[in-house]
Amino acid sequence: MRDIKKLINIISKLDLTKMYNNDFLLTWEKSDDELQGVFNVADVLRKMRENNISSKIFDSGLAISLFRDNSTRTRFSFASACNLLGLEVQDLDEGKSQIAHGETVRETANMISFMADIVGIRDDMYIGTGNTYMRDVSRFVKQGNQDGVLEQRPTLVNLQCDIDHPTQSMADMAHIIDHFGGVENLKGKKIAMSWAYSPSYGKPLSVPQGIVGLMTRFGMDVSLAHPKGYEIMNDVENIARKNATASSGNFEVTNNMGNAFKDADIVYPKSWAPFAAMQKRTQLYGNNDMDGIEQLEKELLFQNAQHKDWECTEEMMNLTKDKKALYMHCLPADISGVSCEQGEVSASVFDRYRIPLYKEAGYKPYVIAAMIFLSKTRNPESVLMELLDSNSKRWRG
Amino acid sequence: MRDIKKLINIISKLDLTKMYNNDFLLTWEKSDDELQGVFNVADVLRKMRENNISSKIFDSGLAISLFRDNSTRTRFSFASACNLLGLEVQDLDEGKSQIAHGETVRETANMISFMADIVGIRDDMYIGTGNTYMRDVSRFVKQGNQDGVLEQRPTLVNLQCDIDHPTQSMADMAHIIDHFGGVENLKGKKIAMSWAYSPSYGKPLSVPQGIVGLMTRFGMDVSLAHPKGYEIMNDVENIARKNATASSGNFEVTNNMGNAFKDADIVYPKSWAPFAAMQKRTQLYGNNDMDGIEQLEKELLFQNAQHKDWECTEEMMNLTKDKKALYMHCLPADISGVSCEQGEVSASVFDRYRIPLYKEAGYKPYVIAAMIFLSKTRNPESVLMELLDSNSKRWRG
Amino acid sequence: MRDIKKLINIISKLDLTKMYNNDFLLTWEKSDDELQGVFNVADVLRKMRENNISSKIFDSGLAISLFRDNSTRTRFSFASACNLLGLEVQDLDEGKSQIAHGETVRETANMISFMADIVGIRDDMYIGTGNTYMRDVSRFVKQGNQDGVLEQRPTLVNLQCDIDHPTQSMADMAHIIDHFGGVENLKGKKIAMSWAYSPSYGKPLSVPQGIVGLMTRFGMDVSLAHPKGYEIMNDVENIARKNATASSGNFEVTNNMGNAFKDADIVYPKSWAPFAAMQKRTQLYGNNDMDGIEQLEKELLFQNAQHKDWECTEEMMNLTKDKKALYMHCLPADISGVSCEQGEVSASVFDRYRIPLYKEAGYKPYVIAAMIFLSKTRNPESVLMELLDSNSKRWRG
Repeated sequence: MRDIKKLINIISKLDLTKMYNNDFLLTWEKSDDELQGVFNVADVLRKMRENNISSKIFDSGLAISLFRDNSTRTRFSFASACNLLGLEVQDLDEGKSQIAHGETVRETANMISFMADIVGIRDDMYIGTGNTYMRDVSRFVKQGNQDGVLEQRPTLVNLQCDIDHPTQSMADMAHIIDHFGGVENLKGKKIAMSWAYSPSYGKPLSVPQGIVGLMTRFGMDVSLAHPKGYEIMNDVENIARKNATASSGNFEVTNNMGNAFKDADIVYPKSWAPFAAMQKRTQLYGNNDMDGIEQLEKELLFQNAQHKDWECTEEMMNLTKDKKALYMHCLPADISGVSCEQGEVSASVFDRYRIPLYKEAGYKPYVIAAMIFLSKTRNPESVLMELLDSNSKRWRG
Repeated sequence: MRDIKKLINIISKLDLTKMYNNDFLLTWEKSDDELQGVFNVADVLRKMRENNISSKIFDSGLAISLFRDNSTRTRFSFASACNLLGLEVQDLDEGKSQIAHGETVRETANMISFMADIVGIRDDMYIGTGNTYMRDVSRFVKQGNQDGVLEQRPTLVNLQCDIDHPTQSMADMAHIIDHFGGVENLKGKKIAMSWAYSPSYGKPLSVPQGIVGLMTRFGMDVSLAHPKGYEIMNDVENIARKNATASSGNFEVTNNMGNAFKDADIVYPKSWAPFAAMQKRTQLYGNNDMDGIEQLEKELLFQNAQHKDWECTEEMMNLTKDKKALYMHCLPADISGVSCEQGEVSASVFDRYRIPLYKEAGYKPYVIAAMIFLSKTRNPESVLMELLDSNSKRWRG
Repeated sequence: MRDIKKLINIISKLDLTKMYNNDFLLTWEKSDDELQGVFNVADVLRKMRENNISSKIFDSGLAISLFRDNSTRTRFSFASACNLLGLEVQDLDEGKSQIAHGETVRETANMISFMADIVGIRDDMYIGTGNTYMRDVSRFVKQGNQDGVLEQRPTLVNLQCDIDHPTQSMADMAHIIDHFGGVENLKGKKIAMSWAYSPSYGKPLSVPQGIVGLMTRFGMDVSLAHPKGYEIMNDVENIARKNATASSGNFEVTNNMGNAFKDADIVYPKSWAPFAAMQKRTQLYGNNDMDGIEQLEKELLFQNAQHKDWECTEEMMNLTKDKKALYMHCLPADISGVSCEQGEVSASVFDRYRIPLYKEAGYKPYVIAAMIFLSKTRNPESVLMELLDSNSKRWRG
């Protein structure tokens, strides 16, 4: 308990005022204090749950989930986070392929939000649309609230868009902080965010972009590695570069997996699609050009197959710091000889890191809960103290 | 707070005894006091939520939703209402086209109701079946309760049937009452419930029927306008006529949109299918005659297309009282040049009324909550006072 | 209330320690005390609900439901049980036909369980896989908890597998206990668990297996009847035989429906598929041999049709004790002339037992709630007393 109070005390010293009644869309729109606030609140919520203290701040309330793509992990993480805080999730199922237009978005956003406290959106399929869609929804519900249509402004959590995947990257960062014993120990640590071969195509860019956009904030040495042709969004590269400068860290892009792995403290080998190809795909879908999409798929699979050597093998791991870098992945991974013939990582590497990988994933529900908590409490530190003092049990075991 | 207490005081003077442990299926089965009770309780619940006072009357409990047709708005309204009162929604997904028969309905109704406090049903597709189905379910669960099968009688809320759409019409009425500053100001106000052209076919009749069946209760001048061949159910016309006489209002049917709009205080232009055609469609579905249905669809679209001039244009609006009647719609509307080439309403009219339209929709969750509340509390006024006095927060913001 | 306290007193004398933090997978893995505990806790929970006393033991918490087969009744029973105790259900929808493999099961089991208190699984389609799958999930989440991945160990409830259907058989038993006025009155009572003709094929064996595996525990005279070729799993027959010996009851297998019905106090006529055929089907699905499956279906329907005389008619009922044995079924039944041309039971028999049949089904939510309750409370009797004493209302009616 003393532990929890110490954490709450740290939270009380952070400037979190702008998080209240606000969205969480991109990590690089948030201040260092705000990111720190999310990590600390996530930590407090976890410790409260471990100590069987209820952290419900809603007696009733709705969280709308809008998944424009299939998802098990993020869906369960969101549901867990909402349940922990007392919100009931209501899913809005839209046709997967349907790209909604302006007026429809405005109307739907208002119609589902009369009693919505939170809206969680995942829309990562089409370059140029996911994040835009979220901002449209945000703008429309803000307007709805100002116009007296909505009694409250439902705040948004980005559960993955075409640009960033903040709940993933923040959970990953929480895992790194825990692994290295504190955020203060990350300066100079090298992380390799590397492309890896996968026999499937079209994996979103939001994970590598989210990682380089966030990890460069902490003075780390961030190395983004991929074959030529697998460039990420230029804007995100620029953000990473600026971040690295500001935090006295480093950001480099290389076309050599080994260079990135060399002396790395952390490796994050993961497949993604080339940005340009995803842009093209968005256009093809827009034109409903199914033949074009099939053709593009073939090209991308062929292109991928040129880089089967981009695999996180034991040999690659041997290049890393003391041969034992922390291996990370957002899961599910393409494991060679297990989930596919050849993939992102060899079975022995994956297997050795299974427990840390599962723990990495376990941060996500708390990170989401913290994002919601901070958008819904004007004085998070006093609400946390209230919860702690009331000592209401989560579970009468 | 004084405001809320005043409202509760008004509620205490209404005779609401027959609403307890009872269904809400058709507005014309309810007394004036009962309708007033719904409006007032909806108002109290909204004010309590605005003042961050919890109105949970269930610590645990289930609300079954049974949507025999797609729905986003009504689904979310029902979920919001249930959540506000502490009920968890459990959806029963039945095949859309399946028209259940007697014994199956009886068994299913009981099997899903062991711990059900509320059952919300939407079944508006087939003339002659929706309301009948609801009455079957109601009868079977009442019987189940009497036989000792069910510990409680789950009460029903009609979320749209083939005859009425009471949660819609009551929400619409709440909007009108608010707009004109009180139910006492509605006497003599003219409302035009008018058919309007739509490029789609088979839209349910429950909205116009619900509107003329309800609005004639308040001494209003109700004008139902449609092209020849778009008659609504004869029974509902008779009810509207009787209502109008009883409330010293007026009810007329015209085949001229302009006549209805002339000097109207409120206009409600909306497409619907001819009753006779819907009867025919029910038969065709019953016979599984898919060719017949396709043929009927063609005929109906052709028939609709003869009446493209039935559009709520600026010219039509200029006919209304001071050229600024309140424009209403249950949404989504077919907006000319926006959601279709030509439709029910011109874009400039719709756009001018967007905020009131959204507000109109915003009454529905509260109206549903009030219906549930009144069917589940023997002394609604004292339960409301209890909630107010306990002053339990909905949200620790 | 005195009634409830008496029941809690009985519970306090049972040895239920091994149920805490444990799964409920097969009734024959549970001690007599443990089965008794489930019946008694179910009874207490029902009486508390009837007396409007909240039995929520979770302020927040998740129950994961994993239905690998369609289900309305069990789904609603599970949802009701969870809601009663304060758990929110989160459904995991997997492809119906997908048979998950080792690593995927391990990963998914952990990924959905970060905040899961309970996992309810139904997997009854494929012989040799359902129960195995449950044990895999159980093993993996236990391991996850030990490895520090999961903060708690989510316990499992078997909502029907290929071997047993414990929530069904326990609900059936609760019904029998109630009918005969106490478990002490069951000694020597004869129950006929009989195969019956159905025009559909491939019905699971878990019901007859669950029934003979459980009913033989209470000194009853259990007669399992089926045509040759409809044998159940050999292992379960052996368990039934051992149970009968231990409880000084009797277990016999006959190929004559009349023999089983003769002087029976209870009859449970129900169709099922031959075990050997279901084994073959599992192989065919494993090989994705759709032609083979179609062929097998034809053979099974033909085989079924040889035994149309296995129907629970009035004549058959006349063979039973005083011509009025208690007729039981897990529902839905194939009723001759009602849900099919010819089926398991004649309409007049079914109709006469409709109310008891519905009541039989009504035990399931409470049996499931009791299983969850006992796996989640270290001292069930004191938690029940706490709930009773706090006298918190389920519903402010």
